[in-house]
Parts: sequence; structure tokens; C-alpha cells
Amino acid sequence: MAVITVIGCGMMGSSIAIPASENGHEIRLAGSPLDDWIVESVRTTGFHPTLKRQLPVSFRSFFFSELDRALRGTDVIVSGVSSFGVDWFLKDILPKIPDGLPILSITKGMIADPDGSLLSYPEYYRAHCPGRSLNISAVGGPCTSYELADKDPTQVTFCGPDMETLVMLRGLFERPYYHVALSTDVRSVELAVALKNAYALGTTLAVGMAEAKDGKLHYNSQAALFGQSIREMRKLLLLHGCSEDALYVGAGDLYVTIFGGRTRLIGTLLGKDVPYREALESLKGVTLESTVISERMAHSLEALSRAGRADPADFPLLMHISRIMRGEVPGSAIPWEAFRD
Amino acid sequence: MAVITVIGCGMMGSSIAIPASENGHEIRLAGSPLDDWIVESVRTTGFHPTLKRQLPVSFRSFFFSELDRALRGTDVIVSGVSSFGVDWFLKDILPKIPDGLPILSITKGMIADPDGSLLSYPEYYRAHCPGRSLNISAVGGPCTSYELADKDPTQVTFCGPDMETLVMLRGLFERPYYHVALSTDVRSVELAVALKNAYALGTTLAVGMAEAKDGKLHYNSQAALFGQSIREMRKLLLLHGCSEDALYVGAGDLYVTIFGGRTRLIGTLLGKDVPYREALESLKGVTLESTVISERMAHSLEALSRAGRADPADFPLLMHISRIMRGEVPGSAIPWEAFRD
Repeated sequence: MAVITVIGCGMMGSSIAIPASENGHEIRLAGSPLDDWIVESVRTTGFHPTLKRQLPVSFRSFFFSELDRALRGTDVIVSGVSSFGVDWFLKDILPKIPDGLPILSITKGMIADPDGSLLSYPEYYRAHCPGRSLNISAVGGPCTSYELADKDPTQVTFCGPDMETLVMLRGLFERPYYHVALSTDVRSVELAVALKNAYALGTTLAVGMAEAKDGKLHYNSQAALFGQSIREMRKLLLLHGCSEDALYVGAGDLYVTIFGGRTRLIGTLLGKDVPYREALESLKGVTLESTVISERMAHSLEALSRAGRADPADFPLLMHISRIMRGEVPGSAIPWEAFRD
Repeated sequence: MAVITVIGCGMMGSSIAIPASENGHEIRLAGSPLDDWIVESVRTTGFHPTLKRQLPVSFRSFFFSELDRALRGTDVIVSGVSSFGVDWFLKDILPKIPDGLPILSITKGMIADPDGSLLSYPEYYRAHCPGRSLNISAVGGPCTSYELADKDPTQVTFCGPDMETLVMLRGLFERPYYHVALSTDVRSVELAVALKNAYALGTTLAVGMAEAKDGKLHYNSQAALFGQSIREMRKLLLLHGCSEDALYVGAGDLYVTIFGGRTRLIGTLLGKDVPYREALESLKGVTLESTVISERMAHSLEALSRAGRADPADFPLLMHISRIMRGEVPGSAIPWEAFRD
């Protein structure tokens, strides 16, 4: 039996612990400084207020002030922070974690360097901890936290530099409803799944356009934007020296984010030509990884373009998203002509 | 102004004529021997009984017995037959069409040779008309006929061996809501879009599984099967010497078929473990291209496997579909373990 400590007990951090708990492992949910209210609820009633589910009674929960106790004797750390918590995890948490202790990160996203090159979060952590020997793996693939908590069939990919660690992690988490593929190609998997947040926003513009037209769902337009998304995701993988084989992980992740994720909310508003600032305002409190990654990918492309290494015209949907966010075009002004070429 | 004659006036053949009609071209809908009742309805009331839409009043309609008159002075032929009508089109129609006259085929599918190699329908027609100089292009990409008839934004790909013909055809059909990309890579586009029918069946197994569980929609499981579909489609393109760049056309087409197509009906039934024969029986009258292509692709893989040129284990979702159709396994027995490798 292993002791698994989840740091940052949001929806995904909490739900990924459920299969591991069923496998008999000890689960400790440790809140970030923003999670006190969640820990309070879990501790008193077992109810997770954002996941909206009762957690297994065996889960132990810890306030941030109790983190040292949560970490004592732990065998595996799960980093449950969103991309907004990455720098906090880097500065306040990583120094507390011994070298070599396996960390499984659920954070999806990429950091763009000013020169346009991209770093996955595991790479980012390692780059900022010179001299340390961090053992960080990450989770990619299509998985909404609600459905994982409900034990619906789910398949994800654990990626990391060390296959032995990955096999060990799979052993802790895999269940008959939670299937885990493994990959040592961290950059490719992480880029493919990070991109899905940007392109789910792009695809769901069509949901808003259809709602504005007649209140119904239409699929030709969604499918056209979905196809263009896959096309641009493949080109971005190639541009960044990644393997095309990872595209399928991003494709599944794109699919689930369109239907099960929060990104659909903002894509739909923007497709109805609600201005970006207004759309953000109306979704206050919703974590919007999609806008972060869209901005970073656009900046990266522009930097690569200045260096003559990429042509933003090859990525018309991504650039359209970027222009919407800058207030330059309405969301429904899809650059169809550019997709033809 | 051009004269465009559509032969086989089902839903897609009739709806693709709408944008061309709006561009001012003369549209003649010519029925197959099975279409008399459709022609009767269109001629007397303008209502298309399967498309369930009024057609533009300018459309002229022709019974099969009037085909010669419909063909007189025509500039472009649209082949509107489903894959079940391909041999009829080959034997009864192609001999009436002069060499060089542009034909645009909407039929999606592939023919599998006994040795496992695949032929697109344009290639099949040419192979069976030695000595003739047929000018056949084809339409791929995500497009349901209802939504095209409703002028929802749609993007398709016209593919054919001759770019000049493709540019001419685009000029006839393109509208502000009907966007047309062009490709001379016929095999790759046609294989990618043919595969979507098989894999839409595969993905919608999860719809049936979720309905059987609690009557609700779930997306983790759909997304897992969607991702696996993209993975196998990419491998099949590579196996058959096609370009991976066409994958995005198939991905968009897969997406629209899952949501807007008839294949979802059978996939959902099979996901509820309804036996294949029973499921077919209950869908009598529905055109099931998905079962045709699934069978052909499975046979092709088995032939290539006997020749040592492919390993069916690389395509576990396709082989699962094939086993369901042979009555060997229930639809919900998804081979998750095989997807991990």
C-alpha cells in the first residue's frame, strides 16, 4: 500500500485519487492556500463542493497549514494545480519534495519562451530547479473529473522520462474503468493536450454561431472547425519537433473538452460575438486555461515568425482566436477562405 | 451558366445542388430506378421526401426513364449514388457519359481487393473502364445533407487528378456558406473519409454503453474511442501509402458522422449489446455505409496480415467492430487493454 498526497485539491486532483483509493492506497488531499473552504467541506461532510460528489470516507484532508504533516512518509505526490498555480508549486512546494520522489502532475499547458520555443510544465519545473533530480511525470488524455469520479470508462496517458516510474504509477492508479497508456515522449503528449484547450475554444465558436442563428445545434460548422483544429495541431506538433503519433491523444482530449469542459462556455459566447472582455466578465470564477494557452501559442508563433521559422498564416484558426481576444474581430468572422489553402 | 445533372437524387445529391443553383446554374435531378417516388414528389410539390426540405423551384426533375433527356447538353455530372449504387453507376450510367465530361462523385467508401489493397471509387471506375478517359473528381469532408440544405457553414474537400477541373468545379459550387478546399491526392482524402464511417460506429458504441448505464451522455468514454479512432485512421493511411495530411479531413468527417449521421443509430444499439443482426433488422431502410466499410477494412487487414504486411493487433477498435458484426463479442466489451499499447 502506498501513501499518495495530492497537493491542490480541485476537481481533477481529487477525482484522480479515487481509483488509487479503490486500489487500497492511502489518499491525503492537501489544499493550496486557496483551498481552505474545500478542505473544510471535505473534512466535515466528505462532500467536495466543486466536484459536487461525496469523496470516499477513507480520504484524509489537510489544510495548507498542515502540509508538512500531509507530506510525512508520502510515497507519491500528485500536483493538482491548474496552470495558474504552477509558479506557486515551483516556489512553495517543490523545495519541500525530496529528489527522486515520484510526482504526477495533472496540469495541462505549455510555457512559451520569448523566442517562441515551448516548454511543458515538467520541463519548466526541471529548468527552474538546476542541480536537483526531480522525478516528474504528467497525465494527458481525455478525462473530465466528474466522469472519472463517477467511474465512467476513461483512458489517459501517463508521460514521463522514466518508464519504470510510469509503470509503477500505472500500477497505483489503473482500475477497470481507468485505463492508462504510457509514453516517454513528454513534450509531444504535453503539447498535443495543451493545444486542445485553445482549439476547443475555436471549435465551440460554431456552437455559439448556431445558437445565435436559430438556437439549435449544428454540426457541419463544428466539424469544419474541428477538422481545421486537427490540421493546425498536427502542424504545431511538427513545428515544435514533436511526434505526430501524439496527435491522437490531443484529438481525444479536444473532443472531451468540447463536450465536457468549461472552455465550451467561452467559445460559445465568443461565437455569438460577445466581446472578449464581456465574455470573461460573465464567466468570473471559471478557470480558463484555454485563454492562457491561446495567448501563449499566438505569441510563440509571432516570435517564430519574426525569426523566419514559422508562418502564422499556416494557423488561421489559432490566429483568429488571438484576434478575437485582442478585440480585433468578432468571433463569428471565421476566416473560411484561409482554411481552404 | 452551366447545366449540372445529378444522377441519383438522394439527400446528398439533392442538397449539393442547392449552392450551385444559387450560383445561377441549371440543376437537373435525375433519379435512379429506385428514386421514382422521390422524383414524383419533387415534380409535383417541390418537396424532397427524405431530405425533408422544399427544393428550389428552379430544379428540374427527371425519372430514370427520362435520363437521356436529362443528360442532353449537360456540362457537369454529379454522381449521387451511395456505395450500394456504385456498380449500377459503373454499368448503366458511365457508358452514357462522354469521355472528359467532368463527374463529381459524392459516394464515400473504398473497395478492398482480395489481396487487401484498397481502391477509391474514382479509381475503381477508371480501373473498370480501360481505354476510356474518365474525368472523375470526388467530394470529401464533413457535410450532412440537412445542414447543407439549410445553408449552415460547411467546408468540404473536392479531390481529383486534375487541378484545373477542381478549380472549375469549385467555381460552380462554392457559396459563402459552402467552402471548398481542393486536393489532387484522391486516395488519401478518399481513404480518410471512408474510414470515418467505420470509426463513427466504433465511437458511438460509447453512446450506447452510457445510455445502458444511466440513460445519460458521457464523454470520457466517447473521447477515448474517438482518440483511438484517430490513432488507427492515421496508421491505416500510412499502411496504404497515403498522406497523413489528409487525416484532418477524416477527423472532421468522423466528428460530423458521430453527431449528425445515421451511423450513430447502429453504434448506439451495438453499444447496448443488441446483437448485430437484430440491430440491422430494427434499422431497416437506413443506409449503413458504416457496416460495408467496416467489413471491407477488416477483410483488407486480414489479407494484408496473411501476406505479412500488416498486424490486425495494431487496429484493435476496427477488429472489435468486425467481431461484433460476426456475433463473436458484445459491443460493450471494448478491448481497452489493447488500446494502451
